[in-house]
Amino acid sequence: MKKFEEKTIKSETLYEGKIIHLQLDDVELPNGKTSKRELIKHPGAVAVIALKDDGKIIMVEQYRKALERSIVEIPAGKLEPGEEPEKTALRELEEETGYGAKSIKPLISFYTSPGFADELVHVFLVEDLYVLEDASEQDEDEFVELVEVTLEEAQQLLDNQRVYDAKTAYAIQYLQLKKAMKK
Amino acid sequence: MKKFEEKTIKSETLYEGKIIHLQLDDVELPNGKTSKRELIKHPGAVAVIALKDDGKIIMVEQYRKALERSIVEIPAGKLEPGEEPEKTALRELEEETGYGAKSIKPLISFYTSPGFADELVHVFLVEDLYVLEDASEQDEDEFVELVEVTLEEAQQLLDNQRVYDAKTAYAIQYLQLKKAMKK
Repeated sequence: MKKFEEKTIKSETLYEGKIIHLQLDDVELPNGKTSKRELIKHPGAVAVIALKDDGKIIMVEQYRKALERSIVEIPAGKLEPGEEPEKTALRELEEETGYGAKSIKPLISFYTSPGFADELVHVFLVEDLYVLEDASEQDEDEFVELVEVTLEEAQQLLDNQRVYDAKTAYAIQYLQLKKAMKK
Repeated sequence: MKKFEEKTIKSETLYEGKIIHLQLDDVELPNGKTSKRELIKHPGAVAVIALKDDGKIIMVEQYRKALERSIVEIPAGKLEPGEEPEKTALRELEEETGYGAKSIKPLISFYTSPGFADELVHVFLVEDLYVLEDASEQDEDEFVELVEVTLEEAQQLLDNQRVYDAKTAYAIQYLQLKKAMKK
């Protein structure tokens, strides 16, 4: 787990933001040379593959400033300090989609950009969904639009690059694999 | 594509690094309120699913300072300015694994962390591999170890969290789906 370890000579936090921190490390490489590493510290996130009884997948369209465009994604959100990922997942589902879920199962956790960031995304499968009676809990500064699609429609969104991110591409492929295994 | 657009009021580059830039934007939300966005600008990257004739997948183990541990990943690397992703993919395969490839096919491109970064990863499938005679082109400051595994072994590495990143999880699932579709 520590193969080819890069030893920290010096570590400097250059920016402490609301969500991300930027850290610049001087490291000693296995051959004794030194180098610099630009690192982003992130609290981690959750994402949910929300499957309705009719087989439709619940997604949300939202504007992503980093990309200067809106894309369609599976519901997701960043972890709050000390909050269990499963709880965050259910909260984000409720806030973003107005659905609650009676069944939740952890599927996989992965680092999104291990080359420069420590963001870890926990992906859950949620089923047995129901419409929340009081959908007033939606964050008034969060602008998302509900998109409910079949697996075939989800693949089309991916082909047209309206779905365009790693966790949602993973989610679509997960459901395709699940379907193929059933045959 | 511009639904719920967040208009830029002010944009400030806080850090220009060797690989990433940190940008802080003031934005106007669709409801007229303002907010801040912490954004990472990244040149983009490539990743290759390298499949040998015997069915084994070529991966590399390397230390990731952002995670303070080493993980096993499919070969990958960041784009050089002006370089075609396909060319970068073949170069990274050669430098990291000592293999060349006669066949390369683009599979998918996805943003890794659309919430804060614009890193786009282009994933290729490479086949018809051959061992390079002159493997001296490896970067002497890059420390990677070749790992050749069957699909079942790759899944075990994922289960044991030695494989732990989005692109490699996607790659393993891609090959599982490909196998399931053949049956």
